[in-house]
Amino acid sequence: AERTRLRRAVVSAIENDPTFSRDDQYFQSQNERYEAAVRKAVHVQKKMQEMGWSENGPESVYVYRALSGDVAFLLHRVFMRSISVLGSDKQVAKWIPLATEFQLIGSYAQTELGHGTYLQGLETTAVFDISTQEFILNTPTISAMKWWPGDMGRSATHTVVFAQLYIQGKCYGVHPFIVQIRSLQDHSLCPGVIAGDIGPKMNFEHIDNGYLMLQNVRIPRENMLNKFCEVQPDGTYLRRGSQQINYFTMTSIRISLISDEAILPLMKACTIAIRYSVVRRQSKLKPGEEEAKILDYQTQQEKLLPQLAAAYAFHFVNRYLQELFNRAYKEIRGRNFALLPELHAFSSGFKAMITQHCTSGVEICLRACGGHGYSLLSGLPSLYTKILASCIYEGENTILLLQTARFLMKCFAAASAGQPVPPSVTYLAAGKPGTCPARDKVDFLSPDVYTEAYQHAAVRLLSSTAAKLQDLIQSGAEKHEAWNQCTVQLVQAAKAHCQYITVKNFVETVEKLENKAGIQKIMKHLCDLFALHGIFSNAGAFLHAGYISGAQMDMVTASYLDLLAVIRKDAVPLVDAFDFTDKSLNSALGTYDGQVYQRLYEWAQKAPTNTQMSPAYEKYLKPLLHNKLSKL
Amino acid sequence: AERTRLRRAVVSAIENDPTFSRDDQYFQSQNERYEAAVRKAVHVQKKMQEMGWSENGPESVYVYRALSGDVAFLLHRVFMRSISVLGSDKQVAKWIPLATEFQLIGSYAQTELGHGTYLQGLETTAVFDISTQEFILNTPTISAMKWWPGDMGRSATHTVVFAQLYIQGKCYGVHPFIVQIRSLQDHSLCPGVIAGDIGPKMNFEHIDNGYLMLQNVRIPRENMLNKFCEVQPDGTYLRRGSQQINYFTMTSIRISLISDEAILPLMKACTIAIRYSVVRRQSKLKPGEEEAKILDYQTQQEKLLPQLAAAYAFHFVNRYLQELFNRAYKEIRGRNFALLPELHAFSSGFKAMITQHCTSGVEICLRACGGHGYSLLSGLPSLYTKILASCIYEGENTILLLQTARFLMKCFAAASAGQPVPPSVTYLAAGKPGTCPARDKVDFLSPDVYTEAYQHAAVRLLSSTAAKLQDLIQSGAEKHEAWNQCTVQLVQAAKAHCQYITVKNFVETVEKLENKAGIQKIMKHLCDLFALHGIFSNAGAFLHAGYISGAQMDMVTASYLDLLAVIRKDAVPLVDAFDFTDKSLNSALGTYDGQVYQRLYEWAQKAPTNTQMSPAYEKYLKPLLHNKLSKL
Repeated sequence: AERTRLRRAVVSAIENDPTFSRDDQYFQSQNERYEAAVRKAVHVQKKMQEMGWSENGPESVYVYRALSGDVAFLLHRVFMRSISVLGSDKQVAKWIPLATEFQLIGSYAQTELGHGTYLQGLETTAVFDISTQEFILNTPTISAMKWWPGDMGRSATHTVVFAQLYIQGKCYGVHPFIVQIRSLQDHSLCPGVIAGDIGPKMNFEHIDNGYLMLQNVRIPRENMLNKFCEVQPDGTYLRRGSQQINYFTMTSIRISLISDEAILPLMKACTIAIRYSVVRRQSKLKPGEEEAKILDYQTQQEKLLPQLAAAYAFHFVNRYLQELFNRAYKEIRGRNFALLPELHAFSSGFKAMITQHCTSGVEICLRACGGHGYSLLSGLPSLYTKILASCIYEGENTILLLQTARFLMKCFAAASAGQPVPPSVTYLAAGKPGTCPARDKVDFLSPDVYTEAYQHAAVRLLSSTAAKLQDLIQSGAEKHEAWNQCTVQLVQAAKAHCQYITVKNFVETVEKLENKAGIQKIMKHLCDLFALHGIFSNAGAFLHAGYISGAQMDMVTASYLDLLAVIRKDAVPLVDAFDFTDKSLNSALGTYDGQVYQRLYEWAQKAPTNTQMSPAYEKYLKPLLHNKLSKL
Repeated sequence: AERTRLRRAVVSAIENDPTFSRDDQYFQSQNERYEAAVRKAVHVQKKMQEMGWSENGPESVYVYRALSGDVAFLLHRVFMRSISVLGSDKQVAKWIPLATEFQLIGSYAQTELGHGTYLQGLETTAVFDISTQEFILNTPTISAMKWWPGDMGRSATHTVVFAQLYIQGKCYGVHPFIVQIRSLQDHSLCPGVIAGDIGPKMNFEHIDNGYLMLQNVRIPRENMLNKFCEVQPDGTYLRRGSQQINYFTMTSIRISLISDEAILPLMKACTIAIRYSVVRRQSKLKPGEEEAKILDYQTQQEKLLPQLAAAYAFHFVNRYLQELFNRAYKEIRGRNFALLPELHAFSSGFKAMITQHCTSGVEICLRACGGHGYSLLSGLPSLYTKILASCIYEGENTILLLQTARFLMKCFAAASAGQPVPPSVTYLAAGKPGTCPARDKVDFLSPDVYTEAYQHAAVRLLSSTAAKLQDLIQSGAEKHEAWNQCTVQLVQAAKAHCQYITVKNFVETVEKLENKAGIQKIMKHLCDLFALHGIFSNAGAFLHAGYISGAQMDMVTASYLDLLAVIRKDAVPLVDAFDFTDKSLNSALGTYDGQVYQRLYEWAQKAPTNTQMSPAYEKYLKPLLHNKLSKL
């Protein structure tokens, strides 16, 4: 309750400050949005100081949520995070205070024009020059150009560049280097630096994603981030700890984006679409009655309510991931890297599964609002075009799922051989054929019944793919080729694992609510809906081995459709519980008061297409129409 | 071959005319795009006259394809079409020449702010005033405001308004009326007319979708389109033919949009994504080798090649629909409306199934191109945001599928009772339980085997839903409520029907290619892939009743995955065969020469974010950074 009060106070302070207004957001050009995002980024620092909000406290989370992403310098924060994680104490002491006070603006330059997920393939080079104790950075080809880094196109003065380290002709792989790219005096590009903006994107117009070419740019030896590896003055290369730690920044970002960039947008989209669906009336359910609210149609319920259930499911599983992360991070700070593979596999798989599910959920919400959903004023198009990027950035989803699959295959082999595996995957050893015990549709409201079904599907997909892989290798296929031929199924298996964990975690969360009977009851409905929707919409995975029969699938369908009507009654309170303000939704369809049509009309009046005269009439239409006919 | 020559000549003439350039498209504001679209619309008329191209000939189709939709006054064409279909000979003689010569600009005002698919619910009124022989049009509430009509926000001088006709206090339902809304002298709004632009949308920035309120606007009696119904001077209402004919304009538009607004964009997206996937290299398939082309990864093939197969499948089934339409239209012109229900059901279902499939296909292509797909310069985001609208406009897809389902349910009941049904649905009577005869993965390359499987799935979904509906009614549920409780499954059944027809039609098309062995062979592969992908990705529908067993599903999977590798070899020629010019793709990733990185870099230079200085530095960054540190 106190947290809620704090959150509401922060959100209200942000929303009532006109500098942070998003009223014009849907009417602005890319340049205008960039300018507004910089203005907000600068102002928010001042505001936080004024208000006494701490950068590392809960206020900061609420501030950035209230800003709804329309703020520059998020990569500045990634820049800081990578220095904190990968920098020595000395480097942290030097750079973090400067960055905190915005005496420089940082970015994070990893991805190249020709290189994304495969970091080993990065082409940028950093050659150590013993004579001057400097690294010389170069972009050897056009495909080596850094491309996409946020805040880099027009803002950043510094960036962390990932480059292949060369010492005396020998390559030591990819390492991070702090490079100044613009003057702190006049913001002009530093010698040897070519940088700019990569142009228009599907969203993120407010961010200056940039490109960067380096031509013999020299930086001092101490600018290589050297907590885990170091080049000594004589050129000796030292490593402390796993090289994988270089990717830890990515892992940590991957986990932190799940909530803000995937689950929150889905919650917003559900709020907008469900509120609209109880205002919008269309056609008649019963002859002679007035037109029905569209949420009373089964097809509309079937679109929206599973998304609502998913938003809750992911919210809970995200907490589980956060705990795993916190545990692992603590170990890593103590230089124990044992949890890293599991953390990497889980963060990859869940990032992929959740962003993908949330993206299609937002799209479903958009489409469920018909034509008005397609208007930018509904807020849904920008939620969609933004969340879509989450399927691609910080690791493309298919690649991530394959990394999860690789971990699961190892665990499966170990479990099959009776070797110990992490607790989260011990179920792989317990896999037994059997069939589902349900005998009536009500049986499918038993969490044990559906959790077992999910477990069975995950084990089957994993074990059958493992068998296929082995068959291929035994028939003489080369290992990498055999792996490639199994990847479509490996992706399915990795998803099935993540779904199983999500369902299991939702069930456990509901169990823990035993002291709050009212909430527990409705969360149980949502949990059931989430689980049964997954079986209904991916029926093949459950029918395949006969674990669930056709007759049982009919029971699943019946229970699932029954649940829709049950949850329909609580749909509005369930989205109200997300507690989004009207300003944070920024949607003509989703406001709390339901004045949809009035607001669409009012907002449209403010569009530049109504406030600015178009020269099109004078130039093209007048010569065509004028004076030909006065009246028809 | 001659058609190809003509098409290429037309396309080349359009693309080489600088007035039609789309070079700046990704950099323009909504106002700039509107102005350009009007400029193009006016210029294209001149051009067609100059070149001697006929408005009704094949040239016109090529012209509009080459313009890629970036042209105004498409609703002017709908305005003309509705007058041609619904107007008397006299009305056609009066209005069509004026519209053809652009002495007026027309629009089509059906949808209202509160009313979309349920036309009977439209609120706009047209009251007949016998004393003046006029209709008085009114917008009685805010939700009655016309909202969305294209070309209406800033351009149109006239529009066809759909309104409830009242004569002496009695309502005769929705009828079409020609209403002037802007002066032909100075383009000011006519008395009693309030109109404007509805503001920014997810795409279609170049179109001035508008709103319209009418306050006691009077129009002469002869402005009601009266081919099929008429109000006589004394207020007598006469009907000639089915009232359903009022919706015929929609049916015809629904069919014509399938090709240009759904299939063509999918073909473009496939071309871009597949060409990019043989240029882009990422990671290594085999250790020690150079990085592999991403199209050599099974997961990438599995994303793109089924979309390619679908583009061909829909291209062929669209021809089938066109033939049905032409046949029906001929009958209707002779006032025989017998084919109307089947045409309506088919156009609805296929519009829904194809637009939905193509939309997700384009999204898959976009995501398969990773980060660069997300850049507007790839061309994919605008293809996606545009095609998405096709799922909503001209009938929301769920509603359309339910209309198809209603038709199928009637046919199913008739067929079960031994009554005659249209040839396309006779299969409903032939449904037999049985099981799939396949014994080896190769058996699933037999068109008979998979066509039967699709047929079986469609019949099962339809018959089980029919049984459920009957059960509910027999258990005492009211008919409309029972129907509502079956709608999720009815939608599935309607889709299954359309999929079956699409597969069957693809098979028949391939058979007819017997004289072109080379083409037939590769089309057979695509047909197999389309069919098996559908079974693989919707396995539950086929496993449910045991028609296909788990072991057979493994065969389907094996054959399906094998086909990916086979078609991979021809993927590039198969998209080259679509014969899109670089200009028509307007994509930095999809050009014929494969110079992806160079072009991304060049195009980005031209973005306003690079060509215009942002005031953000002077205003916000300079005070922050300036003079604090000269060098770090």
